[in-house]
Amino acid sequence: MSDTDLAAVDRSLGVTAPGGFRAGAATCGIKASGRADLAVLVADRDVPAAAVFTTNRVVGAAVRISRDHLDCRRTMRGVVASSGNANTCTGPQGVADAREMLRLAAARIGCDPEALLIAQTGVIGRPLPMEKVRAGIPQACAALAAGPDADAAFAEAIITTDTRPKQAGARLQVAGRTVTVAGATKGVGMIEPNLATTLAFLTTDAAVAPDHLQAMLGRAVEASYNALTVDGHPSTSDTVTLLAGGDAFEGADPVAAGSADADALQKALAAVCADLAYQIADDAEGGTKVIAIRVTGAAAADEARAAARAIANSPLVKCAFFGGDPNWGRIVSAAGAAGITSGPETMRLTLGDVVVFEAGAGVDADADRLGRVMADHDVAVHLDLGAGDAEARCLTCDLSYDYVRINAEYTT
Amino acid sequence: MSDTDLAAVDRSLGVTAPGGFRAGAATCGIKASGRADLAVLVADRDVPAAAVFTTNRVVGAAVRISRDHLDCRRTMRGVVASSGNANTCTGPQGVADAREMLRLAAARIGCDPEALLIAQTGVIGRPLPMEKVRAGIPQACAALAAGPDADAAFAEAIITTDTRPKQAGARLQVAGRTVTVAGATKGVGMIEPNLATTLAFLTTDAAVAPDHLQAMLGRAVEASYNALTVDGHPSTSDTVTLLAGGDAFEGADPVAAGSADADALQKALAAVCADLAYQIADDAEGGTKVIAIRVTGAAAADEARAAARAIANSPLVKCAFFGGDPNWGRIVSAAGAAGITSGPETMRLTLGDVVVFEAGAGVDADADRLGRVMADHDVAVHLDLGAGDAEARCLTCDLSYDYVRINAEYTT
Repeated sequence: MSDTDLAAVDRSLGVTAPGGFRAGAATCGIKASGRADLAVLVADRDVPAAAVFTTNRVVGAAVRISRDHLDCRRTMRGVVASSGNANTCTGPQGVADAREMLRLAAARIGCDPEALLIAQTGVIGRPLPMEKVRAGIPQACAALAAGPDADAAFAEAIITTDTRPKQAGARLQVAGRTVTVAGATKGVGMIEPNLATTLAFLTTDAAVAPDHLQAMLGRAVEASYNALTVDGHPSTSDTVTLLAGGDAFEGADPVAAGSADADALQKALAAVCADLAYQIADDAEGGTKVIAIRVTGAAAADEARAAARAIANSPLVKCAFFGGDPNWGRIVSAAGAAGITSGPETMRLTLGDVVVFEAGAGVDADADRLGRVMADHDVAVHLDLGAGDAEARCLTCDLSYDYVRINAEYTT
Repeated sequence: MSDTDLAAVDRSLGVTAPGGFRAGAATCGIKASGRADLAVLVADRDVPAAAVFTTNRVVGAAVRISRDHLDCRRTMRGVVASSGNANTCTGPQGVADAREMLRLAAARIGCDPEALLIAQTGVIGRPLPMEKVRAGIPQACAALAAGPDADAAFAEAIITTDTRPKQAGARLQVAGRTVTVAGATKGVGMIEPNLATTLAFLTTDAAVAPDHLQAMLGRAVEASYNALTVDGHPSTSDTVTLLAGGDAFEGADPVAAGSADADALQKALAAVCADLAYQIADDAEGGTKVIAIRVTGAAAADEARAAARAIANSPLVKCAFFGGDPNWGRIVSAAGAAGITSGPETMRLTLGDVVVFEAGAGVDADADRLGRVMADHDVAVHLDLGAGDAEARCLTCDLSYDYVRINAEYTT
């Protein structure tokens, strides 16, 4: 999907912007910082739900439980989220703690515990402080409300090392009615594709059948969260959920797969996911720049993806961007080591709008123009392999002193 | 090969410690720093030669030429090396320049240009300053000599961002004669396995047939250079050469493959390569610690290797070691994302001699003991996956502010 296909996104829209959802948050003390750390998102009734999870073999209790719940039923009432403790590698007690959280929330919401998904993020390997969590869940449920304040509180309560909350939404017309797609997400370290990266909670008031919803989410995630890397380290907790309340379509049929309405909804969902992923790259741990990598002309799609990710994950490339250095040798050599079949003779590398490498050798580029490209907050890297028609994109950030500081100091 | 199988290594032995070799160096001005940047290593006659090269699809002119020469003949007179300019992505002119360097050296040495290998390291994408190089090669050839001073000059002339030269050797008895294996190497960024990493020049006065020599080099590199990563970015210039002069065996038959002598020589070669690889990790760009990762109990060898490398290449793991933080969650999750089939329930993670993770959960380890382990310059990480018999090792370093500084400032 090209950028021009994406719908307009509005960051004032949060998880309750679609009709039929309420959100609540609380500060229970999981985070030593005293910031909000518990969040609940509920639909007015059980609604079609979809989710994608990390592909890491080491997963948190929340991922296990959410997968189980979605295996048993395709409609959900809501999601419980906590931040500051990933509840990963915490053994059977961690699973018991997460289940207790859902029982407590379900009792307040008035639903089955199995009708709730759960997502948790933070430090790995520490027991949840359940006394605090037990006190916090009723508070979060008591705060359930719709509107910008509830959206902001929810988005704030799910973040960890993020410097700011992240939400985005889009409105579109479906069969003469206004439909909204919105979501909140968090980053901003331990982020790598090949899975739904980090946490994201999406809502819509469109009516979509569960299987169709799962397919739509998969497509939207593929081009956004699955094309985003901060540090090449896939997390144990990654979860993206999508609840389709259907509130704008009370009593109507679900959007038909393959219809123009489904296409419009898919585009809106993709645009929201793309914007949320951009916000993660923009707030990445220690990141000072957003780098959008596009590899075209690959002999095969997996080569294009591998090359784009190799460039995005090279610490040498990332440090060069931090230093504002148009070090194209690092970019070309990162691609060359990614298992591509073509060689440098057919490659063409463009930074911003400046060609810097072509036909196996560097191009004597205008230093002023190149300097301006490298000084920008957003840098576009386009590597044409000149060997075929396949292409891929990857979004990443640079690697700065602050990444090292944050991750040398962020202690277990 | 376990550590205890390795022969004793002596770092006072350099490339001319084996009989029958001379080395020379010069400062011609490729490096702006004014440090030595040209090196020549020659045998007294054409001798069996072996080499392994980068698997990057983007390679320097030197790698192309050396591969060509080894395809045509299996004995060589020597190696020409330069540092400060990789002569990569320099087009046809780069190949012509490298060939001219060999012609100039061959004329002084008195051999065919095709009897020389060439290795070049440094910045990618800049033309070689051939006027300077033309003046330098006769100087390096005029300096050819054997002995510790020549060894030191050679080792010094091949380094780039290294803070110190690196050499190592070992002596052993083969059929009643003393044989020496020795080498010099350089690092210390853009280093990643799956190829012979960086530059290394090995010599021996044992008599070994070319095919046997290539097999021995392959085995030695697999457990050393191919199990070493600094930043996961495979270089375009990686070259490891081995010349077997046979000077200790004048007139004798080559060492027989499969014999006890071959085994002893293999162990000495492995020990020298392992020590050289260790020296690179120890001097890695911005590195403050050497981290030896061992993954055992894997279901398959490729899983063990993938897990060891994923741990070694995770910036989060590396930053934690820089901060002295026993953040085992990052280690376990890096392995979990590496495509292994086993889960955390069977894993056991040991840092130094302290078990920190077992049976799916953290172990309440003695904080003082763990603190001492993490404060050491050398940290051993042992992850037992508990799923089979395969194992792998990987050597790496931590990720510090200095890595970012060096690589944000090291400019094209």
